[in-house]
Amino acid sequence: MKLLRYGAKGAEKPGLLDADGRIRDLSAHVADIAGDALSPAGLQRLAALDPASLPLVPGTPQKDIRLGPCVGGTRKFICIGLNYADHAAETGAAIPTEPVVFNKWITAMCGPDDDVEIPRGSVKTDWEVELGVIIGTGGKYIDEAVALDHVAGYCVVNDISEREYQLERGGTWDKGKGCDTFGPTGPWLVTKDEAGDIGNLKMWLEVDGRRYQDGSTATMIFGVAHIVSYLSQFMSLEPGDVISTGTPPGVGLGQKPPVYLKGGEVMRLGIDGLGVQTQRVVRS
Amino acid sequence: MKLLRYGAKGAEKPGLLDADGRIRDLSAHVADIAGDALSPAGLQRLAALDPASLPLVPGTPQKDIRLGPCVGGTRKFICIGLNYADHAAETGAAIPTEPVVFNKWITAMCGPDDDVEIPRGSVKTDWEVELGVIIGTGGKYIDEAVALDHVAGYCVVNDISEREYQLERGGTWDKGKGCDTFGPTGPWLVTKDEAGDIGNLKMWLEVDGRRYQDGSTATMIFGVAHIVSYLSQFMSLEPGDVISTGTPPGVGLGQKPPVYLKGGEVMRLGIDGLGVQTQRVVRS
Repeated sequence: MKLLRYGAKGAEKPGLLDADGRIRDLSAHVADIAGDALSPAGLQRLAALDPASLPLVPGTPQKDIRLGPCVGGTRKFICIGLNYADHAAETGAAIPTEPVVFNKWITAMCGPDDDVEIPRGSVKTDWEVELGVIIGTGGKYIDEAVALDHVAGYCVVNDISEREYQLERGGTWDKGKGCDTFGPTGPWLVTKDEAGDIGNLKMWLEVDGRRYQDGSTATMIFGVAHIVSYLSQFMSLEPGDVISTGTPPGVGLGQKPPVYLKGGEVMRLGIDGLGVQTQRVVRS
Repeated sequence: MKLLRYGAKGAEKPGLLDADGRIRDLSAHVADIAGDALSPAGLQRLAALDPASLPLVPGTPQKDIRLGPCVGGTRKFICIGLNYADHAAETGAAIPTEPVVFNKWITAMCGPDDDVEIPRGSVKTDWEVELGVIIGTGGKYIDEAVALDHVAGYCVVNDISEREYQLERGGTWDKGKGCDTFGPTGPWLVTKDEAGDIGNLKMWLEVDGRRYQDGSTATMIFGVAHIVSYLSQFMSLEPGDVISTGTPPGVGLGQKPPVYLKGGEVMRLGIDGLGVQTQRVVRS
């Protein structure tokens, strides 16, 4: 299934993308794509529905239906850094011996096609296409062997990053990772059964049509099962938590000379089978 | 006012501490100490109530009433690091030129007297008494001159920290700051009008009766108004967000040799006028 949330910001309704790419309303069956709906039993109930029996959302498949983040009720937006060896190299960082963990403030989370705001005074706002992991079943001290049982599905995340705030303003990376709109999430939560081989998905990102990132999850250092297990040693994971698993090479910081986002530009990014995001860049 | 939340974990009810130290039930007047209840108008409505007219919570003032975190609906638990010059010195860090910002995962938040869990395998779990700031009115790009208008009140926070995870496991500090139970918050949200001079509050922490921390907010580097304004340059603040503003000297890491928590120990910590926390240390 491809699950999604559509409607105005903060008032999104649950939906499903049918085989023809049309949005079907799930409101009669589930309150949100969140909490218990993400459990194996919850997903099974949704999978048992006949999509043709669900109301078409007025306007679909037109593109003027706003999508929100593809998961609701998220309390933790956890990010893994430098998880592609060639990206670590382009930023001048050492290859990590265990996952680098940082935080995106929850207020950064937004819809996949919402405008991305350059913060006031920012001159180094950058992009990062990433595979997002959505927790379906919570847990703590999770064994790697069963870690994927805790995953509801996958999505695209753009891990927008302000490099000056992240690297030159003191303290942790968190200062440059969690500005408002720095976490487009979606368009869909693709359930595990439909996501294919998550260790071998092509991923890409373009700015104004120029392709900067062209990678694959095949070059990730730490895989999804390891990351889920690892994180659960340091915190309880909960249904709806989102883990963004790092980016392949081609970020703005890695260009020679570096290239950063400007107001009016348009980002497009996608991962095989998980959909495409499109964001207009605006100044805050 | 001293506002609080009492009852079982996840099912806390709103309450108020009266002048005699007894808990009064606010359930008839407000759903939670959260959201709109934290706005100036919301707090004014609560302040207009006669405490004697509110039902006494059965058992009060006995100590077997569990208190939850003193604020609900928190979406961001933001921490400021190295914000006391003498604490920076004891940990061997440079005095920051602007606030050091890091994250406590929201699942770390717990009641003021809940057990604190040493994570599995941890050998360097440490304490930090801190002044917590609770946002009442959200905002972004907030001027320092009006920043305190966005604050609902203050509380005690114990910024529990696993030093190996924080400093020796790669990446940001977040790995050692957000384990479950690493954020006791309360006992009360003390509204601004009752909190006294927040720039001159004594604060202390004891482990098994031995006093390790004995400081004052007077030696903070960056004050509350500056911190609120500063953070709002990097994110939208929301009602219920908690900001923990750093710790004075006397943490375990700063002892010669360092001293860390062991199962069975008891921490007691407090700040003038904001109450006392008591936590038993247990192994996870």
